[in-house]
Amino acid sequence: MSLIVVGSMAYDAIETPFGKTDWIVGGAATYVAWAASNFVKPINQISIVGYDFAQEELDQLAARGVNLEGVERVKDKKSFFWSGRYHMDMNTRDTLVTDLNCFLDFNPVVPDSYQGSEFVMLGNILPSLQINVIRQMKQRPRLIAMDTMNFWMDNALDDLRQLITMVDVLTVNDSEARQLSGEFSLVKAARAIMKMGPKFVIIKKGEHGALLFHGDQVFVAPALPLEEVFDPTGAGDTFAGGFMGHIAATRDISFDNMKTAIIVGSAMASFCVEKFGPNRLKEVTRADIDARIRQFVDLVNFDIKLV
Amino acid sequence: MSLIVVGSMAYDAIETPFGKTDWIVGGAATYVAWAASNFVKPINQISIVGYDFAQEELDQLAARGVNLEGVERVKDKKSFFWSGRYHMDMNTRDTLVTDLNCFLDFNPVVPDSYQGSEFVMLGNILPSLQINVIRQMKQRPRLIAMDTMNFWMDNALDDLRQLITMVDVLTVNDSEARQLSGEFSLVKAARAIMKMGPKFVIIKKGEHGALLFHGDQVFVAPALPLEEVFDPTGAGDTFAGGFMGHIAATRDISFDNMKTAIIVGSAMASFCVEKFGPNRLKEVTRADIDARIRQFVDLVNFDIKLV
Repeated sequence: MSLIVVGSMAYDAIETPFGKTDWIVGGAATYVAWAASNFVKPINQISIVGYDFAQEELDQLAARGVNLEGVERVKDKKSFFWSGRYHMDMNTRDTLVTDLNCFLDFNPVVPDSYQGSEFVMLGNILPSLQINVIRQMKQRPRLIAMDTMNFWMDNALDDLRQLITMVDVLTVNDSEARQLSGEFSLVKAARAIMKMGPKFVIIKKGEHGALLFHGDQVFVAPALPLEEVFDPTGAGDTFAGGFMGHIAATRDISFDNMKTAIIVGSAMASFCVEKFGPNRLKEVTRADIDARIRQFVDLVNFDIKLV
Repeated sequence: MSLIVVGSMAYDAIETPFGKTDWIVGGAATYVAWAASNFVKPINQISIVGYDFAQEELDQLAARGVNLEGVERVKDKKSFFWSGRYHMDMNTRDTLVTDLNCFLDFNPVVPDSYQGSEFVMLGNILPSLQINVIRQMKQRPRLIAMDTMNFWMDNALDDLRQLITMVDVLTVNDSEARQLSGEFSLVKAARAIMKMGPKFVIIKKGEHGALLFHGDQVFVAPALPLEEVFDPTGAGDTFAGGFMGHIAATRDISFDNMKTAIIVGSAMASFCVEKFGPNRLKEVTRADIDARIRQFVDLVNFDIKLV
């Protein structure tokens, strides 16, 4: 059981109503790896970092069972850098800076040692690169999940549509689901997207939770109501990491097990937002995670005693 | 087991992206009564209507077990009339017309025959009138629930704060919870509102479901993901009607039973939005309701099978 994770590893500067940090590790694949490594080893990471990426960050991931053979270090360029400011509602943010730096050269190569991985999580990058990763797999993985964003719907729709035919699970947020499908109703949007290829569609609604669609089946998971959302950066990627980590650990791709995986992802995301960047993810224990998953059971569980 | 329902009975003109109606029965107490009468009889209705209110509408409610002794008919004034237009997201609307008409004279009187009712649902009206209803009850009801709105927070806050100390359950939407408490986090908002008096706080989030708070306990219910929300008018009142109908029918005011009541309310609201006004509520059967409640079980239920 191993999980390939493809995506950005970066540095972020983040401003929220609760605080500010000028330089903290980030990137989709970083969050996915931190979350998933609670459940499955190895994580076969594919990414690119610049000369400024702290070796300590890589060492921490390696200590968690993250295989870094597929992470290229570029000696003469800086790492991908993103800076953003969140509004009070924490659901909207302004991007202040996007310096792609070494990420412009990202051309993911699947190392031989990663071949045979059964599970793949394609973080949000250029759709043609996501396609290239799938094409490099000599054996079709059991489950390929992908994330994407509105930018590629505007700028690389043909590639994105081709990619979507090649994956099993698509994760998008609600506005992206609407844009991709042209449907306002999320039920209709999910149905339209499933017609494009993926058997499973996950629509992330941030503080309002997530929806899982498969055929005519639907599952709804709430987000944990939190006193304070300190920093939502990476919450969606952390959710995906928890989701795929659980799937890869259990090797069970049934709808029922995906429901559990959605709860695991939601639990991981609820930790992520408690501190800046992945700081909270770095410290949570398996006992913390199990306790939080039990909170989700209490949160949604009810007995029907009708009259 | 009987339930007093206080609030408006009105006519509405509604425009949604899916259609338009110029004249359809509405009003909070109408929706509450239609929803609650599936579960409990009698509903002891307290409202006021004008000369133009169709006798047929009153007869339909009477046939459902709604006691109309407390519904005053004003011979020389029209009924409360509201007109609104929903935006594409169905979460926002513009009010086009609010003609209070006979509702300006509303001074709810609790008929003698209503005394001894164990359950009271105070729909959204002037807080001083809601207080008057409670004061008229010779015996303190077992559970008093109230709805209110931002307008009274802006214009009658002192009365509202007094009223809040007198009730057991407060239902508000998310923006109202934030305004009333001054807290952005809904967890903090609910906690602040509970300190003002009510032991239970229900925060309605429309298409994103509802939250129930009681002490340190929280329950989250999703809204049913629907292909089409045809007309959201009255959904919140229908939710309250299903909630209080179930509570009054079971006479069980424990947190556990309130969770079931939240699901019952959510199920009723999911019917309400399928057609204009209360049209869908008028036709659903108990079997339809039970089937929909089972859909909610499937929607949120998951088995934890962790590794």
